[in-house]
Amino acid sequence: MSGAGVRFDGEAPAAGEEPQSTATLAAVAEAAGVSASTVSKVLNGRSDVSPATRARVQDLLREHGYRRRGGGARQSPLLDLVFHELGSAWAMEVIRGVENVAREERLGVVLSESAGRLTPGQTWVEDVLARRPAGVILVLSDLSADQRAQFTGRGIPFVVLDPAGDLAEDVPSIGATNWQGGLAATRHLVGLGHRRIAVVGGPPTMMCSRARIDGYRAALGVAGLPVDPGLIREGDFHHEAGYAAGRELLALSDRPTAVFTGNDLQALGLYEAARELGLRIPEDLSVVGFDDLPVARWIGPPLTTVRQPLTEMAEAAARLVLDLGRGNAPVTRRVELATSLVTRSSTAPPPGS
Amino acid sequence: MSGAGVRFDGEAPAAGEEPQSTATLAAVAEAAGVSASTVSKVLNGRSDVSPATRARVQDLLREHGYRRRGGGARQSPLLDLVFHELGSAWAMEVIRGVENVAREERLGVVLSESAGRLTPGQTWVEDVLARRPAGVILVLSDLSADQRAQFTGRGIPFVVLDPAGDLAEDVPSIGATNWQGGLAATRHLVGLGHRRIAVVGGPPTMMCSRARIDGYRAALGVAGLPVDPGLIREGDFHHEAGYAAGRELLALSDRPTAVFTGNDLQALGLYEAARELGLRIPEDLSVVGFDDLPVARWIGPPLTTVRQPLTEMAEAAARLVLDLGRGNAPVTRRVELATSLVTRSSTAPPPGS
Repeated sequence: MSGAGVRFDGEAPAAGEEPQSTATLAAVAEAAGVSASTVSKVLNGRSDVSPATRARVQDLLREHGYRRRGGGARQSPLLDLVFHELGSAWAMEVIRGVENVAREERLGVVLSESAGRLTPGQTWVEDVLARRPAGVILVLSDLSADQRAQFTGRGIPFVVLDPAGDLAEDVPSIGATNWQGGLAATRHLVGLGHRRIAVVGGPPTMMCSRARIDGYRAALGVAGLPVDPGLIREGDFHHEAGYAAGRELLALSDRPTAVFTGNDLQALGLYEAARELGLRIPEDLSVVGFDDLPVARWIGPPLTTVRQPLTEMAEAAARLVLDLGRGNAPVTRRVELATSLVTRSSTAPPPGS
Repeated sequence: MSGAGVRFDGEAPAAGEEPQSTATLAAVAEAAGVSASTVSKVLNGRSDVSPATRARVQDLLREHGYRRRGGGARQSPLLDLVFHELGSAWAMEVIRGVENVAREERLGVVLSESAGRLTPGQTWVEDVLARRPAGVILVLSDLSADQRAQFTGRGIPFVVLDPAGDLAEDVPSIGATNWQGGLAATRHLVGLGHRRIAVVGGPPTMMCSRARIDGYRAALGVAGLPVDPGLIREGDFHHEAGYAAGRELLALSDRPTAVFTGNDLQALGLYEAARELGLRIPEDLSVVGFDDLPVARWIGPPLTTVRQPLTEMAEAAARLVLDLGRGNAPVTRRVELATSLVTRSSTAPPPGS
């Protein structure tokens, strides 16, 4: 299917520049040894500029203190929301939060997916620069330094929600208290009398997953229990990873009596592994999840889990990015909302206790 | 939180009009006894025009054969996707399908929710007219005749996905073979030997739900089994409705041995009701769902369900709306994609058979 017959005004015109800015652009072009049109291409995020030239021009723009004037006035009434991966109920909770704020502010929410990459591609950046949203919310994604410079140069604020990686210090972000959540989940199991407690993490590249596992270690340490590396598994955040880790852990000769999973979908996979092996939850095996998606209430038995306030986190991210766009300096550009343990029916004292 | 400091160019300028169009506008203004500015407001979907004036102007625009020229050239590279209700895994399947096509076509997807109403509000219409998307996909929502005229007048094509109501004949739509799905689900249960089969429907205002129940009736009729009105329940498409209907049906003295639920979430609610009453699935009760959401594979026991190809339906809707926008006349403007029964572990012969 071709694009014939549909034409878009994809590139933002340079209208609205102040004379001071135009003078700066000319100076930057001269210093960089390129044409003014090349400087304009860099500002517009076009891909037909070599990475070396782009970097040189961006450095000079910063040195010359260039900042597009009146950028706010040319914004579209849109908020960009990008996921590294759409498709789970987790993403839906986030979408609802952003929609809540967008509706109040009468902004449209433009949804996109970085197709599994943690850093969105240049095509996406060009499209966002062209549509000039009031702000960008990145979920489990991070911009490269180059991409950040392009957004900053165009006056488009951005916020990272639930940071997956190690963020640069000046990147505003909203997260949850993952370490506290891991601590609370494991303490709950220790309090019930469990001594052989396993943990299933998400990808080790995700800081949220590392923090949950560290909370698990801390709870064991405080209780004077040893940390057995054989009871720590890592995978991705999907159902299948929980199933695979469950089959392995539950086949151990000295199998765990409780498992803390990195999220609710993994817990569902663990339920399936337990079912296949004829183990009853919670009589033979206790399970604690993470997230508190709607499905956690609906499965049998209803899942004890660590609630992550995803909708509230998304609302906070949307408000923060709009505040930044309005030039309001927030008290803090890094916020972690509290997690909390929700006790349901999937946890009980260990068998024989 | 106020909008102070953020200004948007909310209204589309009238640039790009052909001289013929301008002459038409003047003629319409004169015939309607209003100013040219009022005619322009009607075309731009502004709310500060009385309904009577709006209707009169729209009638005259049609009579004068007014059609904005060059509208396609001024589109934004956006697709609007509106749900009457976000928040379920169902919506996520649809979003993924629209995103698939949008990524190919390099369009941004603007997501919104009509806040539970089946017809979106005028604020939403104004915002869509202002952002001039390449097309609009309405999910379980319908436009009023007045709203349709506004979109048509602005050259913005729209398609309804999974029509909930009785659509006007000229509204393009993509659906699924709901009647066939209800037939297949019920035939499967009849084939296993069930005679007391209940059905839980969605809201009676939704044609998709009526079609599923009619398929159920047809399967019973063909098998020579009576339709017992006491075994037909209606609710909404949420977990809670399945739970409530389940508690009622399973408390009957002559309780059903099988239930066909209107969707997978209702089936989850029915599972919970069965669990509370100590009934085992499938030994004591067979259950068939509808949709085949990811969770259907993950619950215990995995759910037999009617697969509705939601992602493919959404892709088809996105392609259809873009085709319409390009002036390509599709072979048919009404398509129903096939449903299919997916047999898992929640169905078995009735107890004692």
